[in-house]
Amino acid sequence: MQYPLPIAHLIDAYMRLPGVGEKTATRLAFYTMDMPEKDVEDFSKALIQVKNDIHQCPICGNITEKEVCDICSNPNRDQTTIMVVEQPKDLMAFEEMGEYDGLYHVLHGVLSPMDGIGPEEINIKSLITRLQKNDDVKEVILALNSTPEGESTAMYISKLIKPAEIKVTRLAAGLSVGSDIEYANSITLKRAVQGRTAL
Amino acid sequence: MQYPLPIAHLIDAYMRLPGVGEKTATRLAFYTMDMPEKDVEDFSKALIQVKNDIHQCPICGNITEKEVCDICSNPNRDQTTIMVVEQPKDLMAFEEMGEYDGLYHVLHGVLSPMDGIGPEEINIKSLITRLQKNDDVKEVILALNSTPEGESTAMYISKLIKPAEIKVTRLAAGLSVGSDIEYANSITLKRAVQGRTAL
Repeated sequence: MQYPLPIAHLIDAYMRLPGVGEKTATRLAFYTMDMPEKDVEDFSKALIQVKNDIHQCPICGNITEKEVCDICSNPNRDQTTIMVVEQPKDLMAFEEMGEYDGLYHVLHGVLSPMDGIGPEEINIKSLITRLQKNDDVKEVILALNSTPEGESTAMYISKLIKPAEIKVTRLAAGLSVGSDIEYANSITLKRAVQGRTAL
Repeated sequence: MQYPLPIAHLIDAYMRLPGVGEKTATRLAFYTMDMPEKDVEDFSKALIQVKNDIHQCPICGNITEKEVCDICSNPNRDQTTIMVVEQPKDLMAFEEMGEYDGLYHVLHGVLSPMDGIGPEEINIKSLITRLQKNDDVKEVILALNSTPEGESTAMYISKLIKPAEIKVTRLAAGLSVGSDIEYANSITLKRAVQGRTAL
């Protein structure tokens, strides 16, 4: 006995989502059948609209439904600083922090030769062009994850930018606020000692 | 900073699914953005089709995209036995077992006065009408879950059917095959002793 085709299709579709196996997909498909018609229509439309209406901002690579994203088109933001992040979600995290009011550049990935991701595959070229066209920028903050790929991408970008005499910085590494020293890994501890500050 | 509207809508839509909170919904929404366009279109269509094309079989209440479901329209199935189940998923479980070739009747729920679910809210009336119209049926198997609601629904239906001199049976209760006696609950053990069979 197989499920009726429309249900089988929906189960297949749910199974393409990360972390959703056959059991969960089946449960979700049956749940969908019992959802109010309007909710299902909204869901269906939202999927298509995310694909159709969301694109990368041509300036910074952030995701937006407008021609240029809200941050790039806001003249009140500090035009002298660009923070380079890996993903739009990283940008959101800094925006939620609320202390940073400069601009961003979203790479949409990091260099990872093992996965075939070189400089051409991520938004590095557009960053360089942006810096060449724009004399206002005084500092580039490399806010990449402290993974091996993130670190080497940061090194690569800093080498490209340095000749332009723009200040290149990276985020401080150290203990997470609220964390226990005994559970910190040794690289984090090493960085925390190296970067110690005067009281 | 808020997410662009199309993403916010999709996050909302994912959050309506059971077991999906804001973090998971956000992860799924970002994942959706990176999915191939065709997959997203298929997903979107599958949602609508499940709502539009799937309905209850007018005879047995099973879900189907055809006018009458595959089981009711199959003349090779044993027309003398009807197995009453709570949900289409229960029917699927018996079909996967493969040993039963009679007909089904899907209640789509159980009596639960606490939740305002009375006989009118589930497919009991259609079962009685079906039995009245059809003299072939010799046995009704009540295959409801052994929850308090399932048990009382079984009692209710059996009282309605008995006057028609149709045999009413229910599934054997006992130890799950492969399970340990030490972990079985006492009601299960009681049923297993009561229903012991000769070797």
